[in-house]
Amino acid sequence: MTSPAPSPLAYVPFVSVENMMRLVNAIGVEPFIAELAGFIEEDFKRWPEFDKTPRVASHSAEGVIELMPTADAENYGFKYVNGHPGNMREGYQTVTAFGVLSSVANGYPLLLTEMTVLTALRTAATSALVARYLAPQNSEVMAMIGNGAQCEFQALAFRALLGVNRLRLYDIDPEATRKARRNLTAQGFEVVSCRSGEEAVEGAQIITTCTADKQFATILTDNMVGAGQHINAIGGDCPGKTELHRDILLRSDIFVEYPEQTRIEGEIQQLAPDHPVTELWQVMRGEAAGRRDDKQITLFDSVGFAIEDFSALRFVHAKVQGTDYAQRLDMLADPDDPRDLFGMLERSRS
Amino acid sequence: MTSPAPSPLAYVPFVSVENMMRLVNAIGVEPFIAELAGFIEEDFKRWPEFDKTPRVASHSAEGVIELMPTADAENYGFKYVNGHPGNMREGYQTVTAFGVLSSVANGYPLLLTEMTVLTALRTAATSALVARYLAPQNSEVMAMIGNGAQCEFQALAFRALLGVNRLRLYDIDPEATRKARRNLTAQGFEVVSCRSGEEAVEGAQIITTCTADKQFATILTDNMVGAGQHINAIGGDCPGKTELHRDILLRSDIFVEYPEQTRIEGEIQQLAPDHPVTELWQVMRGEAAGRRDDKQITLFDSVGFAIEDFSALRFVHAKVQGTDYAQRLDMLADPDDPRDLFGMLERSRS
Repeated sequence: MTSPAPSPLAYVPFVSVENMMRLVNAIGVEPFIAELAGFIEEDFKRWPEFDKTPRVASHSAEGVIELMPTADAENYGFKYVNGHPGNMREGYQTVTAFGVLSSVANGYPLLLTEMTVLTALRTAATSALVARYLAPQNSEVMAMIGNGAQCEFQALAFRALLGVNRLRLYDIDPEATRKARRNLTAQGFEVVSCRSGEEAVEGAQIITTCTADKQFATILTDNMVGAGQHINAIGGDCPGKTELHRDILLRSDIFVEYPEQTRIEGEIQQLAPDHPVTELWQVMRGEAAGRRDDKQITLFDSVGFAIEDFSALRFVHAKVQGTDYAQRLDMLADPDDPRDLFGMLERSRS
Repeated sequence: MTSPAPSPLAYVPFVSVENMMRLVNAIGVEPFIAELAGFIEEDFKRWPEFDKTPRVASHSAEGVIELMPTADAENYGFKYVNGHPGNMREGYQTVTAFGVLSSVANGYPLLLTEMTVLTALRTAATSALVARYLAPQNSEVMAMIGNGAQCEFQALAFRALLGVNRLRLYDIDPEATRKARRNLTAQGFEVVSCRSGEEAVEGAQIITTCTADKQFATILTDNMVGAGQHINAIGGDCPGKTELHRDILLRSDIFVEYPEQTRIEGEIQQLAPDHPVTELWQVMRGEAAGRRDDKQITLFDSVGFAIEDFSALRFVHAKVQGTDYAQRLDMLADPDDPRDLFGMLERSRS
């Protein structure tokens, strides 16, 4: 007997880093983010339909490896993501990620994709989507404190969804600010490099904090935040890692993705476990208020939730079907007779 | 600027189904299982070193999708596996699986591999390894009730590790028995096809039950099991799915992988939650007794634990390094400057 070629059922579409970048560049970064934000908003609006669990984390002295699963009635998705602050010293990325989207009906993977680039895009898309509900009307100026890998994606997302085109950058490492300024000026932004966080927040309607590697840092002190501002706090995203002074939290209305996770990982780990927060899905459904007036300080305490990755997987799956952005990966055994796995192995010898 | 080729750090070795079958056939199924059993035994003997969590399951009306993670100080591994009893009707496999082995030190995946074939091999290797501690000395005859996809692998494992060469097969579907008999006769086994479970167990020192799709079935009734036999119970492996009559359990000394999981998924879900069981890792370390005398009925209540998959990932990783059994998969973004993910995206346009 000859070894039969695997049936189409045995192949899993795979999107490599190179193909993800081709896809993003073909669509354009801003349209990609805008369309992805639409998928995320759609999924937030049907939040109760999801099977939600906190991420499954494996901690070591060097870092953490996490699995982030979620599912609706049709699809199951999970992301693998690591966080190793010391990696940069060795020439490795601090964070890398990949993910899988599957069919709930038969359990077969429908998509395997890189998610390092995709996570940067979904994090930015979520931030800007949330800011549409919380930032002051007609925001024009955004302060960006922390100018690392996420910075440019945040800027492009806020321009795509809110029209923000003026940026005030600050990072403790001037080289990071130079990198971000170079990239963002080339994208047509009006960019001011600042010498301090205090200088960066001057005149900004939106403050994005996006620093890394800090243990209970205070990127924003209480005096830096004024009435009416929206704070988009990205960097405080694991136990022991926060960016904002506690007093700011006490003056703000706090909006979160999934309280069970944010209370462990977000800025609000500094507060009492029953401190009131508003869930974003309720805001998007019109069941809770977003920004109510122009004096209110709003805070998005972003930690990143599995449903955002699910939306991103769903979006990429929709985009790559029937294109050459996906390679076919022979990842699933598919014997002609499912009971005869051994026979398949034997026949493959010839 | 030109788009630089990804550095070696960005590539993840991937073992496809085809390459897994090439690898298994190049080594030979029995030597593969025997060597893999050595890896599993090694990991059982250092059981306390592992970070252990029950599997993370997402249930639906049609089936279940599970993630099974574990880690030691050096490596992290997880398996994705589904179980969808209705899949065969649609031409899909009931169970498919893939897995990842990573470095704990930096979180980077070291291996992505198919695990449908590999799981069949590790399940058989574990059964035979356990039987070396529990089955009667000089066992020659094994009854096999349930002749589906796992049957041949079990038989080869018991020959490789215990020298068992005589098999008595029974399945409610005679077609399954014909398939297994054809495959196993070709492998040089002495095979008897039986018309009932009662007939199959006659004269057998070892009874392997490996049926599927049953809700609290009774594959073995109490009168079928005699003094001195070893029962290798594979099929009772999820809540509501068991194969043995409760009275057999009460007469047996019961050995399990991980009590926290087995009490939910195994045969012992029929017993009180404090019914005494022995952990296999303690037997392998010589800290608990295995078989004590030739009258004792021993029962391996197998459900499959993450550490067995970890051993299998470790084994395959050792075998494929530097060979063409692994393809290089461009799955991890690797910008020259880790802070400049956006710059990498931009440069890839040219």
